[in-house]
Amino acid sequence: MQTPNPDYHDFVASVFDNARFIKDLGIKLNDVGPGWCETVLTVQEKHLQQDGFVHAGVLATMADHTAGACTGTVVPADKLVLTVEFKINFLRPAHTDALRCRADILKAGKTIIVAESEVYARHEAHEKLVAKAMLTLAVVAGDKRQASP
Amino acid sequence: MQTPNPDYHDFVASVFDNARFIKDLGIKLNDVGPGWCETVLTVQEKHLQQDGFVHAGVLATMADHTAGACTGTVVPADKLVLTVEFKINFLRPAHTDALRCRADILKAGKTIIVAESEVYARHEAHEKLVAKAMLTLAVVAGDKRQASP
Amino acid sequence: MQTPNPDYHDFVASVFDNARFIKDLGIKLNDVGPGWCETVLTVQEKHLQQDGFVHAGVLATMADHTAGACTGTVVPADKLVLTVEFKINFLRPAHTDALRCRADILKAGKTIIVAESEVYARHEAHEKLVAKAMLTLAVVAGDKRQASP
Amino acid sequence: MQTPNPDYHDFVASVFDNARFIKDLGIKLNDVGPGWCETVLTVQEKHLQQDGFVHAGVLATMADHTAGACTGTVVPADKLVLTVEFKINFLRPAHTDALRCRADILKAGKTIIVAESEVYARHEAHEKLVAKAMLTLAVVAGDKRQASP
Repeated sequence: MQTPNPDYHDFVASVFDNARFIKDLGIKLNDVGPGWCETVLTVQEKHLQQDGFVHAGVLATMADHTAGACTGTVVPADKLVLTVEFKINFLRPAHTDALRCRADILKAGKTIIVAESEVYARHEAHEKLVAKAMLTLAVVAGDKRQASP
Repeated sequence: MQTPNPDYHDFVASVFDNARFIKDLGIKLNDVGPGWCETVLTVQEKHLQQDGFVHAGVLATMADHTAGACTGTVVPADKLVLTVEFKINFLRPAHTDALRCRADILKAGKTIIVAESEVYARHEAHEKLVAKAMLTLAVVAGDKRQASP
Repeated sequence: MQTPNPDYHDFVASVFDNARFIKDLGIKLNDVGPGWCETVLTVQEKHLQQDGFVHAGVLATMADHTAGACTGTVVPADKLVLTVEFKINFLRPAHTDALRCRADILKAGKTIIVAESEVYARHEAHEKLVAKAMLTLAVVAGDKRQASP
Repeated sequence: MQTPNPDYHDFVASVFDNARFIKDLGIKLNDVGPGWCETVLTVQEKHLQQDGFVHAGVLATMADHTAGACTGTVVPADKLVLTVEFKINFLRPAHTDALRCRADILKAGKTIIVAESEVYARHEAHEKLVAKAMLTLAVVAGDKRQASP
């Protein structure tokens, strides 16, 4: 996949540094390339729901933010990308101390980007797919005050 | 809508008290009745993404948890309910200091519950719909160690 | 909801006349207004799946086409609207001789339209909700040869 | 992936023979194995929408039916499987004379099966991904008259 922003690495890194919700959760950029992005999260008690599993909202946030960051590799630096919608399936309860998310862009259109994210939970030496999301994002002009597709 | 759990109020309240992720985020139960539930969130800086809007993950978490709590009014107390999947559309960037979420159950089946959640942002004296989700949840036996639909 | 196309009725009617798949299925425009549209279908054997229920694909087609037609009331006549994605929940098997679909626009943005569709099955004197969809559509320039968001 | 039904091939074939909607559309079983299924469709004028593209409903039907058929390889023969919901993204308008759909099961639970389907359009010697769906299906008792999850 080609990139119109050769400095995408710095831009993507800033999407993690400047998103307060993500910084507080502890979701970290692991690696990124044209059309894909990978993040990791060390699970803590603060990420859990009432039954002791990782909260669906944490998995959804990870899937969404990783895909969003990923779009930074396929749009020019002066554009803003917003999540239009996503759908996420939870395949099994996430009972783990470490999560990894990999996002891939399926189609980068002029105004619409479609991506998918897979979230894996570590179980001893293995990983299990715990959630998979499909996401639609919109490329809008870079003026945040008028940002609405 | 009928309820098989007359003590649903206490159960639903516990779903907020015992979910560490929700407590830390500040999502609070506002009101609940058979087949519906309402929550509120006072927006703080820690809920924002890199452009100053409420993070999509916060809206998704609110939509998911409110719908999940809502199912406590339509299943017996010894059952466990897990989110199978959800889809959420973000209608406009959420630039607000207060969010309200209303979840309604569309269908309560024996093993599958379908619900929808609407998230509203307060703008001065008005409210605007900022996100809408449709969710599928599974009713499983109450043993958490074997919880997987 | 306001309309930029006062002749929307003729346009919406043409979306049924010119869509060969819809004409063959027998999905008919019942009524339309700014921001909403209603269609009906007389169920025949050709609409069924292997267990005698209306095929999920028929319900999905009805939900999609009714929402798509609906967008004709909120975009100028020279624009083309394409379905970007939809999600549909099937609440109960559709065992009926008549279906009705109602689509409503939730948000009409400059380039993105979000709509929802409800499909009802007639059971004697009553109707039951059998499917509900949420859809994202893109407004693109009217040139069909370059139509891709 | 293991199969509890060694005669799955005959069962899956019957899901195409007995689904009148699929037979009329012309969607044909191409190949099937444990956890996956592939179908093909020769595009005709009757499959088109008003702008000359394959109707989204045709693509959705193909994605749904191929995934549904696929579940026949992972459930016992006396079970009935119903689509609970699906979400489908349309990546580019389908302007083609031949479609191919490949469905894969992501997770086969006791009562819930999650699958994904990809629909490809032939363009000369190549294929392009035109739609991708994620689906949730429910395994219910085989009695059709009480079939509701």
